[in-house]
Amino acid sequence: MAETLEQEQSNLTHQRLQEVTQLLEQGMFVRVRRMLEDMEPEDIAHLLEASPPKGRLVLWQLTDPEDQGEILDELSEDVKDGIMVRMAPDQLAAATEGMETDDVAYLLRSLPQDVSQDVLAEMDAQDRTRVQQALSYPEESAGGIMNTDVITIRDDVTVDVVLRYLRMRGELPDTTDTLYVIDPNGRLIGNLPISALLVNQPDTDIADIMDAPDEAISVTMDDGDVASLFERRNWVSAPVVDEHNHLVGRITIDDVVDIIREDAEHSMMSMAGLDDEEDTFAPAFKSARRRSIWLGINVLAALTAASVSNMFEGTLDKMAAIAVLMTIVPSMGGVAGNQTVALVIRGLAVGHIGDSNTRWLLAKEATVGMINGLVWSMIIGGVVVLWKGNIELGLIISGAMMVNLFVAGIAGVAIPTLLKKYNIDPALAGGMALTTVTDVVGLLAFLGLATLFIT
Amino acid sequence: MAETLEQEQSNLTHQRLQEVTQLLEQGMFVRVRRMLEDMEPEDIAHLLEASPPKGRLVLWQLTDPEDQGEILDELSEDVKDGIMVRMAPDQLAAATEGMETDDVAYLLRSLPQDVSQDVLAEMDAQDRTRVQQALSYPEESAGGIMNTDVITIRDDVTVDVVLRYLRMRGELPDTTDTLYVIDPNGRLIGNLPISALLVNQPDTDIADIMDAPDEAISVTMDDGDVASLFERRNWVSAPVVDEHNHLVGRITIDDVVDIIREDAEHSMMSMAGLDDEEDTFAPAFKSARRRSIWLGINVLAALTAASVSNMFEGTLDKMAAIAVLMTIVPSMGGVAGNQTVALVIRGLAVGHIGDSNTRWLLAKEATVGMINGLVWSMIIGGVVVLWKGNIELGLIISGAMMVNLFVAGIAGVAIPTLLKKYNIDPALAGGMALTTVTDVVGLLAFLGLATLFIT
Repeated sequence: MAETLEQEQSNLTHQRLQEVTQLLEQGMFVRVRRMLEDMEPEDIAHLLEASPPKGRLVLWQLTDPEDQGEILDELSEDVKDGIMVRMAPDQLAAATEGMETDDVAYLLRSLPQDVSQDVLAEMDAQDRTRVQQALSYPEESAGGIMNTDVITIRDDVTVDVVLRYLRMRGELPDTTDTLYVIDPNGRLIGNLPISALLVNQPDTDIADIMDAPDEAISVTMDDGDVASLFERRNWVSAPVVDEHNHLVGRITIDDVVDIIREDAEHSMMSMAGLDDEEDTFAPAFKSARRRSIWLGINVLAALTAASVSNMFEGTLDKMAAIAVLMTIVPSMGGVAGNQTVALVIRGLAVGHIGDSNTRWLLAKEATVGMINGLVWSMIIGGVVVLWKGNIELGLIISGAMMVNLFVAGIAGVAIPTLLKKYNIDPALAGGMALTTVTDVVGLLAFLGLATLFIT
Repeated sequence: MAETLEQEQSNLTHQRLQEVTQLLEQGMFVRVRRMLEDMEPEDIAHLLEASPPKGRLVLWQLTDPEDQGEILDELSEDVKDGIMVRMAPDQLAAATEGMETDDVAYLLRSLPQDVSQDVLAEMDAQDRTRVQQALSYPEESAGGIMNTDVITIRDDVTVDVVLRYLRMRGELPDTTDTLYVIDPNGRLIGNLPISALLVNQPDTDIADIMDAPDEAISVTMDDGDVASLFERRNWVSAPVVDEHNHLVGRITIDDVVDIIREDAEHSMMSMAGLDDEEDTFAPAFKSARRRSIWLGINVLAALTAASVSNMFEGTLDKMAAIAVLMTIVPSMGGVAGNQTVALVIRGLAVGHIGDSNTRWLLAKEATVGMINGLVWSMIIGGVVVLWKGNIELGLIISGAMMVNLFVAGIAGVAIPTLLKKYNIDPALAGGMALTTVTDVVGLLAFLGLATLFIT
């Protein structure tokens, strides 16, 4: 079977990494520098991400200072921070030259206040003003991700006038698919896709061919909302306006793609108790400290479960087989409940779940729990009867399993929707809370039934 | 605090859904139809996704047949299939009119072979040929997601000639940011961003201003690879060529955004044992059947853990406190190991982890496991000594915890990388395999040490 391109690219990165590591060990810095010169900034960024911390800093020293801004922009937060703290303000200022305003602002935000002031002081006046304006908007807002390099036109001119203006201007900003039509006060009154300039006769008036503005993106809109608008409307770029409908910038799809990717990764990483910016190759101590918090929360969950078992010490004392089997019911409940939690977290994230259908979903997931509870309680009950030769024990584990899977279905819907209601991230807290519930209910049901009927 | 737009949109959907549900119950179909007429297809799709199965089909009947193609295209697989099985071939053929070729092919693939043949027969000849060609490529390949509506030009003409040609042609296909330059044999020799037509003088030769083609996308390239190329290179559209470098179509960012979103969701859903196309509002029986498989696998895992405990039945018989505490060590190992698994799955997906750095990562995660093992074993040991007043038991649980977190770090790297090597999806199988390992090792260590030192 042919290898896919992704594998090829990944293999290429890892071949290069092996080569680079060898060359660095042999002190052949000039050859590494030459290798890096032939690579695209985004491929160098990939190489840096895949590189353990020690080699990463040496590699960085060998990159072309002119590319450094673009490379930094492609790196994930943690990796970028690790590199930037070692750069002098003038180096940082030099790296930002030729970068887009929103990307420079993004870099500066990860620096300590005083360092970013020093970097701003090193920049030329025009760039500084632009970047300072971008910094005045919150990081995760439309203002924080927009560019200010928009081309504006008036509506009382003809296609020919615009064409001559553009020819005089030369080169359009990257990803320009639309020109924006403004009134004399700078208010946005229309969009003109550049394709309209190509297919219409030179003497056509702009007013006749411009489109009415789409839903406007306000400069304060949350960046996740910007991303879902782009995704729904299939936009390539969109104008950003202030509260008086003045055009202040535009957002392009390349920045939106990064947000979509990050939002989607966030759920997965949070569910495992990780920060989504966590650097795969961070030093062990740093990783250990970060992950320790999550383990600490789980200690409380595990001790809660243990104290439930502790209530039944007498029962456990009488029959060791109960202790042997007592982990099965909580385990099944945890798995079933987490299926529901994952489904609900995705539904909440994309906005499919709300007040109008939570009750329906609750009933549905409870039914799913009952169906699977029935199926698996019979199977597990049968296995236990055959294994332990004890029919009572089989009935008890069956009963506990049904209870726990039913509860798992309800808790799987209720926990994330309640967390969301109180503005707690369901992806972060949902799984752990669910597991605690299914552990406690599973143990209570199994050990409780055993205490009632066996001892 | 102001509500975010996403919440507003979501609230809007749920307000509408409540309103629609009420109107449907009152039999006021005409008012619902009028409501739907005022909505964008993508918003109707959102409403359908958020609607339980019964209302969904009634709603669908009330949508404008002209919008149905576009609405279907915005729906997720499961929801779409549920609707399409109830449509007649001629209705389906009518819905596909005005849709892009790749989207029609995508729809037809989800139909049974004979139905899709009937739909094709109902389409007009030109559309049929195009769609049949798109269907000849594998679904998850560049050929499967490309459009054939490309505008091609020759390199021996001037800007003015191209402008006149485009004016004569009128309207460009959606998301056209580049024209493709081909030689007389249809081979791709260059790209011409349409902005170049705007900023260059009319008498400029195309050959002088066209760009050399970027890395070509082959028609057989995997769609995930296409997405990562788009993401890295910040493309808006890209040409697709066959093995002889003939231009056969183009791929646009809107289709790529869907793939990026699906790929990222896939990891999260798979880790919870769900199909990523699972419909949140599917009927309970259908959901139960699908999820049952995963529960069945977990039964095996839970029985494996129980049979480990079973080996120590004698020990459990002697001291019930051991049974009470025996779930703590497996639980902590599972959580710690799954943090590593999630990190490695993401690293493998984006290509940061490969042969060159797996060993480094293994050493790092083992170290993280040791550090956190040390920290939490002391804390848990202390808690157990205070709780149970038994120093031996405290030491035993500490020792078992250290062993299990160390193993969890190693298994967390080893399991997903090995699964990937044998072409098994690490997101699907990784978490369950890891939990089985940490359960078995945790129980072996704790009960084994208890058997050696206490009884």
